[in-house]
Amino acid sequence: MQAEIIAVGTEILLGQITNTNSTHIARGLAELGIDSYYQTVVGDNPHRLADVIEIAARRNDLVILAGGLGPTKDDLTKQTLAHYLNVPLVTDEAAMQKITDWFANTDKPMTANNRLQALYPQGATPLTNHNGMAVGAFYQSPDSADFLLLPGPPREMTLMFDTEAKPKLQAAYGQQAQIYSRVLRFFGIGESRLVTELQALIDGQQAVTIAPYAKTNEVTLRLSAQAATKAAAKTELDRTEAEIQARVGEYCYGYGDDNSLEAVVVHRLIEANLSITAAESLTAGEFQSTIGSVPGVSAVFPGGFVTYANAAKHQLVNVAQATIDQAGVVSEATAIAMADGAKHQLATDTALSFTGVAGPEALEGQPAGTVWIGLAYRDQPTVAYEYHFSGDRQKVRERTVMAGLDLLRRALLADTRLAK
Amino acid sequence: MQAEIIAVGTEILLGQITNTNSTHIARGLAELGIDSYYQTVVGDNPHRLADVIEIAARRNDLVILAGGLGPTKDDLTKQTLAHYLNVPLVTDEAAMQKITDWFANTDKPMTANNRLQALYPQGATPLTNHNGMAVGAFYQSPDSADFLLLPGPPREMTLMFDTEAKPKLQAAYGQQAQIYSRVLRFFGIGESRLVTELQALIDGQQAVTIAPYAKTNEVTLRLSAQAATKAAAKTELDRTEAEIQARVGEYCYGYGDDNSLEAVVVHRLIEANLSITAAESLTAGEFQSTIGSVPGVSAVFPGGFVTYANAAKHQLVNVAQATIDQAGVVSEATAIAMADGAKHQLATDTALSFTGVAGPEALEGQPAGTVWIGLAYRDQPTVAYEYHFSGDRQKVRERTVMAGLDLLRRALLADTRLAK
Repeated sequence: MQAEIIAVGTEILLGQITNTNSTHIARGLAELGIDSYYQTVVGDNPHRLADVIEIAARRNDLVILAGGLGPTKDDLTKQTLAHYLNVPLVTDEAAMQKITDWFANTDKPMTANNRLQALYPQGATPLTNHNGMAVGAFYQSPDSADFLLLPGPPREMTLMFDTEAKPKLQAAYGQQAQIYSRVLRFFGIGESRLVTELQALIDGQQAVTIAPYAKTNEVTLRLSAQAATKAAAKTELDRTEAEIQARVGEYCYGYGDDNSLEAVVVHRLIEANLSITAAESLTAGEFQSTIGSVPGVSAVFPGGFVTYANAAKHQLVNVAQATIDQAGVVSEATAIAMADGAKHQLATDTALSFTGVAGPEALEGQPAGTVWIGLAYRDQPTVAYEYHFSGDRQKVRERTVMAGLDLLRRALLADTRLAK
Repeated sequence: MQAEIIAVGTEILLGQITNTNSTHIARGLAELGIDSYYQTVVGDNPHRLADVIEIAARRNDLVILAGGLGPTKDDLTKQTLAHYLNVPLVTDEAAMQKITDWFANTDKPMTANNRLQALYPQGATPLTNHNGMAVGAFYQSPDSADFLLLPGPPREMTLMFDTEAKPKLQAAYGQQAQIYSRVLRFFGIGESRLVTELQALIDGQQAVTIAPYAKTNEVTLRLSAQAATKAAAKTELDRTEAEIQARVGEYCYGYGDDNSLEAVVVHRLIEANLSITAAESLTAGEFQSTIGSVPGVSAVFPGGFVTYANAAKHQLVNVAQATIDQAGVVSEATAIAMADGAKHQLATDTALSFTGVAGPEALEGQPAGTVWIGLAYRDQPTVAYEYHFSGDRQKVRERTVMAGLDLLRRALLADTRLAK
């Protein structure tokens, strides 16, 4: 079973938008166990579109077309496909009703073009567009490749692909055995080192495949097991995960596609009922903004301080001028004083502090990327650690925030007073 | 002149990475005036790669291959191309020197595969890789399509394409008249409304083309004029820009590809020598973090406050409990008190405040997306404005930060005491 994705849109060819639709569909095909050896992009031109449909149908069992289902004169994908298949376009009544209802509720005139959005090739199964007007279609052909028609706007495409198309693809071509996946998330270890540490496991993988994926500032591993039952898959996934955790478990902070280091840390703080604040210099509020992105954080986060200037470090979190004068503003002593001062001001259980050189210029003779992070944790002695990050100003700040989150994650893990 | 981009990499076909390389190259081709009607993605498989090279060479004058130049056994792009062209691979001595120097400076053994990275098809011009080891190549053929070979990692590819390849493409195929561009940046007006307002100009465009481009929370317009001299282009661009500014100038905040609303506002504050602070509730530090991303901001930004909990609003920026009790925490009165309090605490010239409902839950009976932004500006009466943003928690916070920046931009523009 082999499929090709054709994205239709001149704006992709001009570099005005990035073709994220093909990424999303490709990932879905991989999950369904459908091979994909080619992707194509073509503009809103019926002759060239017909050419690439011809080529793709020759070398694949399924051709997926995304884009060109809209109401403008440039949208010609389904007309071109219907011509290729030699079938007429017919109306999806539910989609047509939705379009006429929408125009009835506005004062805009409905044009003939708008009706085009409710058409699909005769013989296909229409696919509902829950985020728009243009209907999709799944056409199974006895004597040529099958075709899947999807809209171009990513909001419409992703929802239709995930909820309408994927189940139909699975029913039509699905494996007998289903694929079960588990995603492990790592911070503090690069992709190449992770792969090196796990090389024997990756080379010897059989029942469970291990796919590493480098993301911004972290790496994930997707473990996939093909099995007849969920329980059988779980046994295999557990066995492989145990081998991975034995090697690199220290860096594994959590599970799942929709997870993040900040979500894991904030949820742990909420569970443990421990409050947090921060005093930020080089990060200028980015740490607090990052934990602020997690819903529910207000239960443990009263607020905090951005102490960019030395005077603000003194005024807002009581760093003594003598500390800055003697140790320097980018120093262990200043980081510790900032964390202590913030924790004391807002009477929280924990506090982080960030002082360093974001760049591009050096500061106090220290190069860009030099950072001290302080951690005041419950009744433990406040500590600070030195880091040397590479990259531009924004990269240094992002890595600083992630390193602070990881410091707190490790302190929470090591805290024997907390329930596991 | 017509070119096709072929991205080589199984990880794109599996949906593990998004094909941003093709976007970057496509934009570059558009700037050079080279047409592009197709893009292709193929995996690290020499037979299928040979097939797509064959198809692309038949339908184009130039084929650009990105990816597969590295040292692993999967990297076969240049071997496959050399086979197609029926030429041997030869060594770029400068690249080979760089590779041997690198291995001499580490304790890692250099393998035969590493030498592969210095090879290019005989007869081509090698292209230096300033961010990596693998050399690129530009091959001009008298009797088939020309070929451009680029590495796959985006850091290596973009730098090589921009600095090494583009000038050679321009020399080989460039227009007689050069294209001069100017980018205008807009905030507070959507792409569709911007296009509607400028429809007559866009429909009637002749000497200057107008290309709108929707980005996150803003829209840019790229004006391009083809002319024999820079001065002639400037005259045309000035004329078109004046027409645009007359219609939508209120929303135009700046110029250039590498610009942002925060950079414009921070630079204006530095010029005017006006200091700034903030008290942030729903944005939790994101406004301060955003201005903190602009190099040089320390001259005008001493620091500020994240006042997430009501107690922190009182303790850190002196919002009276009675204000919160009577008006509510998401209110004009609270926003004004927060801005005033922050400005007073750090004795700055200006202060912004942010209070609202980031979501997903409602607060005090107000729906997610309800936001008040306060502005304390020099000796003017402090004001606050209400907004209703749509989207998820992160979207609401981002839009809040941008709206705050725009509020300050407009106050600075209207300030008659400042030099223009």
